[in-house]
Amino acid sequence: MRVDGTLYRTIWLAEDGHTVRIIDQTLLPHIFKTVELTSVEEAARAIKDMLVRGAPLIGATGAYGMALAMHEDPSDENISAASHKLAATRPTASNLAWALKDLSALLVDTLKDEREKVAYQRAAKICDEDVRTCESIGNHGAKILTEHWQKKGNSDPINILTHCNAGWLATVDWGTALAPIYKAHENGVPIHVWVDETRPRNQGASLTSWELAEHGVPHTLIVDNAGGHLMQQNKVDLCIVGTDRTTASGDVCNKVGTYLKALAANANDVPFFVALPHSTIDWDLRNNSEDIPIEIRDAREVTHVSGKGLNGEVTEIQLTPDKTEALNIAFDVTPARYITGLITERGVCSASASGLLSLYPEKKI
Amino acid sequence: MRVDGTLYRTIWLAEDGHTVRIIDQTLLPHIFKTVELTSVEEAARAIKDMLVRGAPLIGATGAYGMALAMHEDPSDENISAASHKLAATRPTASNLAWALKDLSALLVDTLKDEREKVAYQRAAKICDEDVRTCESIGNHGAKILTEHWQKKGNSDPINILTHCNAGWLATVDWGTALAPIYKAHENGVPIHVWVDETRPRNQGASLTSWELAEHGVPHTLIVDNAGGHLMQQNKVDLCIVGTDRTTASGDVCNKVGTYLKALAANANDVPFFVALPHSTIDWDLRNNSEDIPIEIRDAREVTHVSGKGLNGEVTEIQLTPDKTEALNIAFDVTPARYITGLITERGVCSASASGLLSLYPEKKI
Repeated sequence: MRVDGTLYRTIWLAEDGHTVRIIDQTLLPHIFKTVELTSVEEAARAIKDMLVRGAPLIGATGAYGMALAMHEDPSDENISAASHKLAATRPTASNLAWALKDLSALLVDTLKDEREKVAYQRAAKICDEDVRTCESIGNHGAKILTEHWQKKGNSDPINILTHCNAGWLATVDWGTALAPIYKAHENGVPIHVWVDETRPRNQGASLTSWELAEHGVPHTLIVDNAGGHLMQQNKVDLCIVGTDRTTASGDVCNKVGTYLKALAANANDVPFFVALPHSTIDWDLRNNSEDIPIEIRDAREVTHVSGKGLNGEVTEIQLTPDKTEALNIAFDVTPARYITGLITERGVCSASASGLLSLYPEKKI
Repeated sequence: MRVDGTLYRTIWLAEDGHTVRIIDQTLLPHIFKTVELTSVEEAARAIKDMLVRGAPLIGATGAYGMALAMHEDPSDENISAASHKLAATRPTASNLAWALKDLSALLVDTLKDEREKVAYQRAAKICDEDVRTCESIGNHGAKILTEHWQKKGNSDPINILTHCNAGWLATVDWGTALAPIYKAHENGVPIHVWVDETRPRNQGASLTSWELAEHGVPHTLIVDNAGGHLMQQNKVDLCIVGTDRTTASGDVCNKVGTYLKALAANANDVPFFVALPHSTIDWDLRNNSEDIPIEIRDAREVTHVSGKGLNGEVTEIQLTPDKTEALNIAFDVTPARYITGLITERGVCSASASGLLSLYPEKKI
């Protein structure tokens, strides 16, 4: 999508054919800076330190991490070592595990001399497929937005609330939750987005706001506490969020706070949609969403916050008393019963086993 | 309550008998500094600049502001001038208007020579009454906590979630929502408090955490997004919050985000209590909580945040892209049906017209 008028993806290959370029998302929205990844070590660090984040982009970075590893050392041992190193960076992200498994399986069946080339090809293919998938989610979701707008009488903008960042910055392009918004916006449907700031890492305030602003989509930032009141006041037409992991029965594990918005949407008859590529579906998890491991992150993300200081520099301040400890729960699970529909690359379905199987019949046991 | 081992109120008289001392709450939790108020001008500024906040404490400061005015000039003209000056600082604060009306009426009926003495006496009485009211809320609420602890088997601490700051810093002492916690803690009931940071002003992170830490009550800071997940995981035994305004039918207008926690408590069978002095009850509001004016505050409170910088100074940073605008809704309304009970200075009742009238029968029309 657009940054200052120029179209970008979140990850791309440099002209030398092996260096990988990404946007350092930790500096957004204050500084737009691209970073080079030249080794599996740097790819792992980029994932771990969240220079890249968002399940699909983590998966794509993992794939390119394997390619960088093959560039360094295409041995059998290094396939395994690189895969383990990359897998350890973000244990909850299923796209990462999927991409690493995919690359590893491909590479062990490839002659050593061809592993580097094959790995880069597969990583590029994963990226292109992600773009196609997200664009397709966008098209299916845009139909829903257009219908809602028509139901409203084709006049006022439709107000969409989103949580965290499931935009193009979280994927290779288009995004998941924001793809329908970008597509509808392109189709001339007037959109206004309520952006949850999404504490503690403020991905809404820093990333969603930034990408909507750069692409020219009207939006207003709110604190995570405000969405319930807006829904009570009929100021939200629908919610769309992303998901980090979706169970086979339609429960959704997404950034912490998603569940609270789903409860409010349910209480106020606001449709609540989740946009997802098939790669987030964990077909092994059926009626046991409590088995999803919930990542507990560094408490410092709660007690400290970074932003633009008085002199324009990106700096960090402490919010809390020295004696106070914090717990940083990164995700929560929204039960399927609160979800109006799942927007996938194959179409829209109910958040249920039968709904998902209607779109992915090949997954029937 | 305790600060570094010493017992404090939030407002008190200095040894000279007319200087008023307060805590500069804008510097908390990073710097504990007391400030002297020696004139009505300084009292007005302390309210306006939010060195003192919380309805009961604002009322008490207004009362002492009138006393300081009488110390300076006990004329009829100054009763009126001081009252107007103080009332203009926070026009929506009902305790302030009530205290100024009370003092003004008393003073015009008092001989000029006695006005200073009478004003100081009345201000002290308002403070003492607030302390008694809060302590009584604490005693009634502590019974609930003790019962929950006994039901749990008298072993593990009970986990209480609170939102914003309804602690002793918002009153003269004890607080409202935190009073039951302090009382139960004093009675030996093991307590652990989940403190919502409470964006955008972070009163939970900065004030509730600080006062619990200083008084020695175990607590953990969480982002506002996390409470739903904790309730799903049975890690919250009950919620207690304060209220800025309570309708005669038991709806509660409190800091924005309260409603989301009440929804989550309801969905997970977690008792949700609201603690309040009678002064927050608006007997004129019955089935029309939508008539409560919801304060929209400066968007800068959302886009910027203050904390302790790298050199220990209190400073401010910007969280958002320059192009992004924010909406700062300060309060929301939690419907009575989500509230397990109201804890007042007269006892505990259901959140309903009949519940409130059972405790305040003199309000029956």
